[in-house]
Amino acid sequence: MQHAGCEEVTLAGKVARPEFTKLRLDARGALALPRIMAAALKGDDALLRALLAIFEKEGMRVIGSAQAARDLLAPFGPLGKLKPSPADDADILHGFRVVGALGALDIGQAAVVCQGLVLAVEAAEGTDAMLARVAALPAAVRGTSANRKGVMAKAAKPHQERRVDLPVIGVRTVELVAQAGLSGIAVEGGAALIMGRARVVEAADRCGIFVYGFAPEDDKRE
Amino acid sequence: MQHAGCEEVTLAGKVARPEFTKLRLDARGALALPRIMAAALKGDDALLRALLAIFEKEGMRVIGSAQAARDLLAPFGPLGKLKPSPADDADILHGFRVVGALGALDIGQAAVVCQGLVLAVEAAEGTDAMLARVAALPAAVRGTSANRKGVMAKAAKPHQERRVDLPVIGVRTVELVAQAGLSGIAVEGGAALIMGRARVVEAADRCGIFVYGFAPEDDKRE
Repeated sequence: MQHAGCEEVTLAGKVARPEFTKLRLDARGALALPRIMAAALKGDDALLRALLAIFEKEGMRVIGSAQAARDLLAPFGPLGKLKPSPADDADILHGFRVVGALGALDIGQAAVVCQGLVLAVEAAEGTDAMLARVAALPAAVRGTSANRKGVMAKAAKPHQERRVDLPVIGVRTVELVAQAGLSGIAVEGGAALIMGRARVVEAADRCGIFVYGFAPEDDKRE
Repeated sequence: MQHAGCEEVTLAGKVARPEFTKLRLDARGALALPRIMAAALKGDDALLRALLAIFEKEGMRVIGSAQAARDLLAPFGPLGKLKPSPADDADILHGFRVVGALGALDIGQAAVVCQGLVLAVEAAEGTDAMLARVAALPAAVRGTSANRKGVMAKAAKPHQERRVDLPVIGVRTVELVAQAGLSGIAVEGGAALIMGRARVVEAADRCGIFVYGFAPEDDKRE
């Protein structure tokens, strides 16, 4: 990257944790590995911070993906035609409460709440797998496409490095939320990324779900 | 039950949440239903408390399953041949921290931690489904039968009604933990039920995993 004149670095996309002992590294990589492995034991956030420090030590600026592509940022309020109902609002508030508690322990960024009941919580399996298992829960505890209820809340961890690993949703998220019988998705406005916004809006309207940019002051409505 | 002379009631086993609106109830059941449904919205613990109140209102004593069958209670320390390693101890401590945070929000009773990383968290899907998905995670983040690592921690919710819904493990739990490549299971000694203890010990020893009754004072070892 230095040979190519790179001055700024941004990280985007999903990275699977490698089997560190099976990586084939050059000399500098091998030198950095013990620090990376030690950080990895402390969780995703520590791992990402250790990686960023390597770029910064080499004189590169790390900029957030939100800064690099500002129009990916979730806006505040509803993104498509539909809005949360008062029952959805209650699930959104509880969802963010749950996600905040998870995030404080560096567990995950997403949870599904339906009429006050926490149906699923994301850890290492990721958001898509979490949504797929909501669709497999007994119909008695969740909504259906004919009678949607419940919300997926996704938010950054309270203390995470916000230049990387912001919560992301896309068309696939919308489709899985719809298949799980939920009413919609709530992210934190200004602190989540929406990939393919026009297609996300189109999918949400087509599936009959809302995508909502939550503002912390919404909390005061309750 | 009153006709049969019952004076004490204990609840055991797993109950799936019914679709309340589809239940066919007699007059007294129909009368109790609104209260039960309102409680159900607040979570499993509130639901169970509302159910117990109905028995108590009818003059029956509700006794805990642990009191009714004392030898089901998990002892303190290792149950089979194997003991947690120091690395397992660290995962056990973190696991109970995670489960405590989950329980405070009435989310679930179990979590899987592997080398400090939270691999899975139980919500409405139950412990078995949670363990099955750990087995499906990439091998890089979890243990294997040849190189076991990670622990399932399961504990009562901090403020739950302890006469019902104590954490339970059995032979199936041991087998799923083994299939997930984990080192073992930690429950709270004196506050979890072990179904079929002799067979659980036999299965744990056969699979090469530990089953450990954690004592809060173990926390001070760290």
